[in-house]
Amino acid sequence: MAELIGNAIVGQSGGPTAVINRTLVGLVEAAADRPQIEAVLGARFGMEGILNEDFIRLSDESAAALKRVADTPGAALGSTRRKPNEELCLQMFEVMRKNNVRYFFYIGGNDTAEAAQIINQKSQAAGYELRCFHVPKTIDNDLRVTDHCPGYGSAAKFVASAFMGDNLDNRSLRGIKINIVMGRNAGFLTAASSLGRTRDDDGPHLIYLPERPITREQFRDDVAAVYDRFGRCVVAVSEGIVDAATPDKKTFAEIIKDALEESEYGDKQLSGSGALGDWLANYLKEELPKGTRVRADTFGYMQRSFPGVVSQVDAREAREVAHKAVEFATAANVDGSVVIKRVSTGAAYAVEYDRTDLANVARDTKCLPDEFIAEDGNDVTDAFRDYALPLVGDLPHIGYLEGMRK
Amino acid sequence: MAELIGNAIVGQSGGPTAVINRTLVGLVEAAADRPQIEAVLGARFGMEGILNEDFIRLSDESAAALKRVADTPGAALGSTRRKPNEELCLQMFEVMRKNNVRYFFYIGGNDTAEAAQIINQKSQAAGYELRCFHVPKTIDNDLRVTDHCPGYGSAAKFVASAFMGDNLDNRSLRGIKINIVMGRNAGFLTAASSLGRTRDDDGPHLIYLPERPITREQFRDDVAAVYDRFGRCVVAVSEGIVDAATPDKKTFAEIIKDALEESEYGDKQLSGSGALGDWLANYLKEELPKGTRVRADTFGYMQRSFPGVVSQVDAREAREVAHKAVEFATAANVDGSVVIKRVSTGAAYAVEYDRTDLANVARDTKCLPDEFIAEDGNDVTDAFRDYALPLVGDLPHIGYLEGMRK
Repeated sequence: MAELIGNAIVGQSGGPTAVINRTLVGLVEAAADRPQIEAVLGARFGMEGILNEDFIRLSDESAAALKRVADTPGAALGSTRRKPNEELCLQMFEVMRKNNVRYFFYIGGNDTAEAAQIINQKSQAAGYELRCFHVPKTIDNDLRVTDHCPGYGSAAKFVASAFMGDNLDNRSLRGIKINIVMGRNAGFLTAASSLGRTRDDDGPHLIYLPERPITREQFRDDVAAVYDRFGRCVVAVSEGIVDAATPDKKTFAEIIKDALEESEYGDKQLSGSGALGDWLANYLKEELPKGTRVRADTFGYMQRSFPGVVSQVDAREAREVAHKAVEFATAANVDGSVVIKRVSTGAAYAVEYDRTDLANVARDTKCLPDEFIAEDGNDVTDAFRDYALPLVGDLPHIGYLEGMRK
Repeated sequence: MAELIGNAIVGQSGGPTAVINRTLVGLVEAAADRPQIEAVLGARFGMEGILNEDFIRLSDESAAALKRVADTPGAALGSTRRKPNEELCLQMFEVMRKNNVRYFFYIGGNDTAEAAQIINQKSQAAGYELRCFHVPKTIDNDLRVTDHCPGYGSAAKFVASAFMGDNLDNRSLRGIKINIVMGRNAGFLTAASSLGRTRDDDGPHLIYLPERPITREQFRDDVAAVYDRFGRCVVAVSEGIVDAATPDKKTFAEIIKDALEESEYGDKQLSGSGALGDWLANYLKEELPKGTRVRADTFGYMQRSFPGVVSQVDAREAREVAHKAVEFATAANVDGSVVIKRVSTGAAYAVEYDRTDLANVARDTKCLPDEFIAEDGNDVTDAFRDYALPLVGDLPHIGYLEGMRK
């Protein structure tokens, strides 16, 4: 393919993260270094901004503004969950042609990669020369090919920190505490709840992942056993846990939603974000000895948006994947997605970057591998800790009274 | 009263905070300086520890351990919500006599102050000479007499930060977002959601407090008006908001709970912590145009336990109230509670400390004063910001693209 010269469009798509703006700023920085890219146009609200010709000239932003934006959670350009079809693609190519756009960088997860893939295919079919790159971000860490995803380390740090605090809260006022963590199909973020444990009796004492279906009775028995042993129990539950007792392996969230919708009383009004945690807590209250203190919290959007809780490794890599995307798209003149390869583990943690085809990242996702899940299915392994700790970096330091050690 | 010489018991009671251990460490530091206090015994799980003679000798803790504990959220000694009665008091005096205890410091909120008051009264009645001091802590900020309470500044910083992040999340993916904040009877913590706003269109756009009953229809109309104006709406709702439409001014949380318990389907299982937020979100979904994106999160225990999110002013004062409690109890040889008096406002913020009788702090609490609540009842005033900002200190810095300013 001939070398392309023109403007670039950058967009953000899907749920925001703590570091998605570092990727945005990284793209602007790297593009400034490349003769093939003239100006960088930021599309407001992802592909909506292309369709509406609603751009911000990112090349005109001051270095000071970009520095502040890089440190800010949320998608600075605005985001979207809309998917392109052929008609929308043709509309977008019209706008791109008008604005002399030859490079398209789309920051997001698997749905965003699929959107980039569709735009890429349609541009080829339409004979509109365009380099399409997907730049990875997702707190779910579920993209294929790559070792891990920018956005995960910071969200994992938030979840690990929250469980460290909640474990101390549960030591103070004992009882059973359930926390629902994001990640509908992959357990990576729920697994991160384990990373702050330092003592044998630290919570979370049980970790339930979407990869391991359970029955409610198993869940109850597991919790009761921990409660008997420690007088308290902190439980991490993925929002996507699956009921092993249903023939079609429905998620608990779906079962609760269906039950409420069937309810004559119209209590479908309650099938909201807190329903899974509340249902599990109330199930335990009914099944365990009367008066057992059981509480549930659902972490919600804070996991992806809390300012100031950022992994330094994650922040660095979120910028670096952007630099690589620009490099691949211009120097190598190819389409694709950026992948991170871990080349050294543990304290010597180091990565390299590579390119893969959009088809390898689009749509389908990956799960937590078996080696990261403990045999009983209700905890993670040391292999997971070795994998995740370098991505998360420093965690808060916790102090105990020496007299409490006994 | 004659000067008393003997050991001191320290206990923590009620919900933990991010800085309650600073108060604990402050008591140990100050006691070390006082000839009247020989050893400091930490009662594990508050009065339970006294009843069970379950103590940690805090005077034997290393300075390094105390330094780490001061930086750690949660109640390092463990906490309790149990209240004393005459019989329990007599049992406790037995243990105190045996351990030569003449000073009792109880760290907590209004219930803890009441417990201290009961113990104080019963010790006088029993002729057991004991100095009883309540040392204030509560994220609710609802203690009477004092200007504000240790624990509030840090929890308020967490809530303000969380709303800053969530406002950015809501800018990225637009819609209506409801966040439920702790504080059953007093709106101080919910009001803190406002502290991170810097732009005219920053959320929370609406703030609902327990002090101002509303109807669901008012709530809906307020949200719809903001949504019409900005295309999005972030709402802060206290867990204790009251339904103005009920004759006896029930809280929404009570109404939802009652409705579920009456439901044949047994959906009382869902009357948990997420129910209020979910109910409000689903109510809006039904009332507003179909397809309107509405979400709710309930902040939960993170507000009081998240490690690392600490107000420096709050941390300093949490230590200082302990020093003052020891000073009053030994030098002045009186019972009571420590109160903070603000002597200078704004950037020159400064406080002094004073003593008040236990009866003035025990049991009854205070609400957000009228001057802190906006006329429409759905926001706070500048007077609240002036009051709360010095307690919270630095908040995260947020950057925007210059092109987005337009």
